[in-house]
Amino acid sequence: HLPRPYVAHHPLQFCSTQQEFVDISTPQRNWKGIAISLLVIVAVCSLITMSVVVLTPADHPASVKSPLTVDDLYSSEFTVHDPEVTWISDSEVVYRNRDNHVVKFDFTRNETQVLLSNTTFVAFKVAKYSLSADLQYALFAYDVKQVYRYSYQASYIVYNIYTREVWELNPPEVSNAVLQHAAWGKQGQQLIYIFENNIYYQSDVRSNSLRITSSGMAGVIFNGLADWLYEEEILRSHLAHWWSPDGEKLAFLTINDTLVPNMALAQFTGGTYPRGLQYPYPMAGQTNPAVKLSVVNLFGVTHSVELHPPYQLSLRDFYITMVKWISNTHLAVRWLTRAQNASVLTVCDAAVGVCLAWHEDSSDSWISRQNQEPLFDKDTTRFFLAVPLRQGGQGDFHHITMFTKKDEIEHITSGAWEVTQIVSYDENKQVIYFLSTEVSAQQRHLYSVSTLGAFPRQCLTCGLREACTFFEANISPDAEHAILHCKGKSLTIILMLQACALSRPRLHSLSPGDQAVTEEFRLNWDWVLVGSEQVIVARLDGRGSAFQGQRFSFLSRYLVKLPYIDPTRVGIFGEDYGGYLALMLIKSTEGMIRCAAAQAPVVDWTMYASAFSERYFGMPSTEENRYQMSKVLPDMKGLQGGTLFLAHGTADANVHFQHSAELIKHLIRVGANYTMQIYPDEGHFLSRRSQIQLRHSLIGYFRGCLLDASSLLDRDVEDE
Amino acid sequence: HLPRPYVAHHPLQFCSTQQEFVDISTPQRNWKGIAISLLVIVAVCSLITMSVVVLTPADHPASVKSPLTVDDLYSSEFTVHDPEVTWISDSEVVYRNRDNHVVKFDFTRNETQVLLSNTTFVAFKVAKYSLSADLQYALFAYDVKQVYRYSYQASYIVYNIYTREVWELNPPEVSNAVLQHAAWGKQGQQLIYIFENNIYYQSDVRSNSLRITSSGMAGVIFNGLADWLYEEEILRSHLAHWWSPDGEKLAFLTINDTLVPNMALAQFTGGTYPRGLQYPYPMAGQTNPAVKLSVVNLFGVTHSVELHPPYQLSLRDFYITMVKWISNTHLAVRWLTRAQNASVLTVCDAAVGVCLAWHEDSSDSWISRQNQEPLFDKDTTRFFLAVPLRQGGQGDFHHITMFTKKDEIEHITSGAWEVTQIVSYDENKQVIYFLSTEVSAQQRHLYSVSTLGAFPRQCLTCGLREACTFFEANISPDAEHAILHCKGKSLTIILMLQACALSRPRLHSLSPGDQAVTEEFRLNWDWVLVGSEQVIVARLDGRGSAFQGQRFSFLSRYLVKLPYIDPTRVGIFGEDYGGYLALMLIKSTEGMIRCAAAQAPVVDWTMYASAFSERYFGMPSTEENRYQMSKVLPDMKGLQGGTLFLAHGTADANVHFQHSAELIKHLIRVGANYTMQIYPDEGHFLSRRSQIQLRHSLIGYFRGCLLDASSLLDRDVEDE
Repeated sequence: HLPRPYVAHHPLQFCSTQQEFVDISTPQRNWKGIAISLLVIVAVCSLITMSVVVLTPADHPASVKSPLTVDDLYSSEFTVHDPEVTWISDSEVVYRNRDNHVVKFDFTRNETQVLLSNTTFVAFKVAKYSLSADLQYALFAYDVKQVYRYSYQASYIVYNIYTREVWELNPPEVSNAVLQHAAWGKQGQQLIYIFENNIYYQSDVRSNSLRITSSGMAGVIFNGLADWLYEEEILRSHLAHWWSPDGEKLAFLTINDTLVPNMALAQFTGGTYPRGLQYPYPMAGQTNPAVKLSVVNLFGVTHSVELHPPYQLSLRDFYITMVKWISNTHLAVRWLTRAQNASVLTVCDAAVGVCLAWHEDSSDSWISRQNQEPLFDKDTTRFFLAVPLRQGGQGDFHHITMFTKKDEIEHITSGAWEVTQIVSYDENKQVIYFLSTEVSAQQRHLYSVSTLGAFPRQCLTCGLREACTFFEANISPDAEHAILHCKGKSLTIILMLQACALSRPRLHSLSPGDQAVTEEFRLNWDWVLVGSEQVIVARLDGRGSAFQGQRFSFLSRYLVKLPYIDPTRVGIFGEDYGGYLALMLIKSTEGMIRCAAAQAPVVDWTMYASAFSERYFGMPSTEENRYQMSKVLPDMKGLQGGTLFLAHGTADANVHFQHSAELIKHLIRVGANYTMQIYPDEGHFLSRRSQIQLRHSLIGYFRGCLLDASSLLDRDVEDE
Repeated sequence: HLPRPYVAHHPLQFCSTQQEFVDISTPQRNWKGIAISLLVIVAVCSLITMSVVVLTPADHPASVKSPLTVDDLYSSEFTVHDPEVTWISDSEVVYRNRDNHVVKFDFTRNETQVLLSNTTFVAFKVAKYSLSADLQYALFAYDVKQVYRYSYQASYIVYNIYTREVWELNPPEVSNAVLQHAAWGKQGQQLIYIFENNIYYQSDVRSNSLRITSSGMAGVIFNGLADWLYEEEILRSHLAHWWSPDGEKLAFLTINDTLVPNMALAQFTGGTYPRGLQYPYPMAGQTNPAVKLSVVNLFGVTHSVELHPPYQLSLRDFYITMVKWISNTHLAVRWLTRAQNASVLTVCDAAVGVCLAWHEDSSDSWISRQNQEPLFDKDTTRFFLAVPLRQGGQGDFHHITMFTKKDEIEHITSGAWEVTQIVSYDENKQVIYFLSTEVSAQQRHLYSVSTLGAFPRQCLTCGLREACTFFEANISPDAEHAILHCKGKSLTIILMLQACALSRPRLHSLSPGDQAVTEEFRLNWDWVLVGSEQVIVARLDGRGSAFQGQRFSFLSRYLVKLPYIDPTRVGIFGEDYGGYLALMLIKSTEGMIRCAAAQAPVVDWTMYASAFSERYFGMPSTEENRYQMSKVLPDMKGLQGGTLFLAHGTADANVHFQHSAELIKHLIRVGANYTMQIYPDEGHFLSRRSQIQLRHSLIGYFRGCLLDASSLLDRDVEDE
């Protein structure tokens, strides 16, 4: 049952490596109460939800007073507070507390100081804030407008924390500027901002702005920022610039989309003659953006040096997937071929622009973890990376590996489990801190491992606190302390047993062994379905299915055969790539799925982004057949009289509405039974209102469709 | 009940004024059988269908073996054959017979000659054909692509009927041309065609093409053709040129859209990077196209003369709504102010370009029948028009009125009925032939009336043939013979009685006294609903409701109170303006409507075409409030728990998808319950496949929604 807790918050903890704790979270309210029924649902980026109905109808036990509703999902009661913690010294953090004050906390002295009060945020309608390195000033972003997944535009004001003086941040000769980015630098009050794709620098809040680049051109040439492709598929960030540790230099990408074809987004509302939008979007096989990496000196006379790709990649299409300063003079840069089956990790000299290959990698399929940052020694003689390591017949698992300049390799960890993140390297103690799945594929615990001797390792969070099983860690500069973020707890087994024993609505998590189905706590609409209907929800991670869907299809068949599941009442839901999988499952399994919902599904991979499609299919010019075979225009006969539910925003910049449009045309052609919800002028990430509408629609759809199947079943039984 | 007839054809008859008949239709098969249950549904351009359920459930009588299905509507069995009859002399017609041969029929000699055999049409994939004035050649259009309501593009070939020689019709130096229009002239083999908005003339099939205009510019300046506004709202035709009777001159409009704002139509499918389309579309209050009328001499040296608007309209925005040659040297032209409350009928001299006002008209609201052609005496001293005439307290009815040059007026007919069309004027006999509603508002009969003495009139078709009640007439050049087209028969009264007595599903026609709800035979999806469910369909003509909906709302309330109707189960369907009315009815009547479907509804009249919106609301600059008040964004509470069904093509060039988009955004905002079907890249007129899909969806929707209401009702009864 689902009692309504006061706040479903994440406790925030400090944990020194000596395992002393300081808990700065507010008292936990009814935490256990939530955990019992909410902790099983797992969230994956592109995933599939299978809804199945248990055979025996059962009344809700009397104790269930108020099942979870869609409105609950959007209520403040169920909103998780994000403290946005950052280290500012070895013993101090700045974070936003539950009352929305931004405070500095010194845990050695147990002193708290309010830097920004919550009333300031209200007064200036602040959507985002950041603090200068010297903690004297804040940047406030307001009128924030989301662009793509990470990028946004906003107006900014500079706020003096002590005098409360404020002023607008504007480029020279511009007023009321809408900026693409603004942030503090590494020292004092230095800051940069990006306007019309050019980078501007100020050495302090009152100094004149210096324009560092001039090639910027809206929607064509991007300086220090990602274009759509780099943001969504390569860097997974809209930021494409990196400060040197001393704040004297800035590395940045220049992404040139001049030759990239433009995609058009229709616009329907908001004006008598609304106009559409165009932006560069390279589909599979089309011209990709050209990219170059430069370093600009900010101190003294500004001048830029271009960092040249290693000879292996000259005259070839490539991506720059990772840039990291490893000292004040050198950067580590990863260069990836367009085919994504070979990469070169280089160390570049920022003064002369020469990059030398340190480690080359290649793969039969594609290189994974392209964004992973190596951890270097201070004298840059060796570095650590998590790389795939074969574990007998159990396949490849990522493990910490030490590389030297001479390409000598030593594996620091091994086993049939994954190192999900290398968090920190303490060179003095010769210890690496990392997160892994060693306990269970759904869990994340923090470990330390010595880089000496037999590489002894130790779990630092196992059993640490109340069955908390999913941790994030944020290690202090001196690697003496960590901020631990408990993001989930496991009660899966208990619930599974209950589900079997009582045939009562329960969450049911089945992991296909991939690291993406986890015990991280997340709320979603399917919880509502589970809470009020006789529905079991299983989440499957489709990412490992390598576009063949065989393993995925196998898992689905396995699920449907469970004794407490009615195989005639199985539904499926998937989003973007998951929508593709949902459609493919209808196509490939005759009659297994009765109800299918696809949100913004990919229907044809030739129409999806180059960097994603080509990774799995290659170039359309040589692999036309693979693209053709992977098109999903199912005739819906596989639904056996069921229906398809389709949802899509018409201005989706990621999976374009053209995918759903082609699907609808096909469904009309074959006379299929389907319903849909479209979201006019909305993108891949729906507005709050549309999300609520969609969740209501989805629940209504699955209720109706599965109930319908149920009544059909009853009739069949009567007929017998 | 609905037996399946072989062909639901229209009998084609010849009727001399002495009432002798020649029936050239094939034998009637089971005509009466169809008539009994099909003849009541009426079709109006923008109308409303009310679906109501009778209270007592009744089994279908055993005799009903196969109710009408959606597929029936699109089967060849139920397709009406159109003979496309034209007079070529006083005793000869050309028409397409039931076997698809094009034949010449001389009814005085009873001789038939095949001009084009059906195999020719198949061989050349002919979509449309026309015959030269000397009957030696045919023009065949193929690869026809519809543009707007009437306009299309096609390729053409010229076909020699006797030698069977063919060649492509192409402008000079162009091959495989796609033309906007091609047609024969009045004499011999003269022909014109329109390419890239310029008119080309050939004096015979083999002569060189002469380009008559050069100002044409795709999507900007139109010669001899209408732009979107003129096609849809002003001329109700895509053709904007008129041959003089002797074929020596051609009058044509030049429509200049340079200053008209462009509307964008999105495109989603049919390419990796699909591109949208732009075309001039003046919304309410926006700049209208400029129009001028010219006459070009085709014989001898070609030269053009511009016909100037009368002084009343100089320096004002105006429309040209009607052009008609009344001799070989003079034309009648109607000019209408942009406000549409004043018009001037002029007679223009084609040689000098001067137009003199003959008759001015003004109205408190707007001028009706703007396209009506006056019938002139040969010496152009007087003319006849149907104009509104007050009939006591019963309102205005259109009646034939004689006007002289001196503006003397005589009313030839009068009474509380409408002259719907003046068909012909026989000057020798001083007799006018016309169609009217004198028998009943739903019927159309052909009458003659003398223009002498007490204007005696006579019904020529009353009781003529088997209760045929809806006629069209096509009078021979010498006005001695008429082709009568029987388009419907009435059995309304009988069916109404049955409906009352038996409480059984029946068609039910209620006319609001407007001439648009008629007995013309048409099949539509609501017949399927009526044929298989306990549903009564009533069609209401919303056109007289003057955008207030009061009369319409009154009629709806009246209908719902009928004793055999369950007032809790009332649905409504409307298209474009009808969709607007449907939405307005939800807004204005609390809980009367349970199920509402709107196809391509207008939601905001500021976003609809100037010529239509301004007629009813005036200019938005001065009448902002009226536009604001007429917006329909209902909160759907009026549906009392029912749902809304929405359907729209995303490339609708008439009612843009922006209307539905704004409505959907509003529905999401208020959390309304709705479903939708969108048709990607389809226009106002859906493809055949989409039509079928929509009809299935509509029937499914009304079945579900009304059935749902029914089960709710049962529950309520149980509760009592």
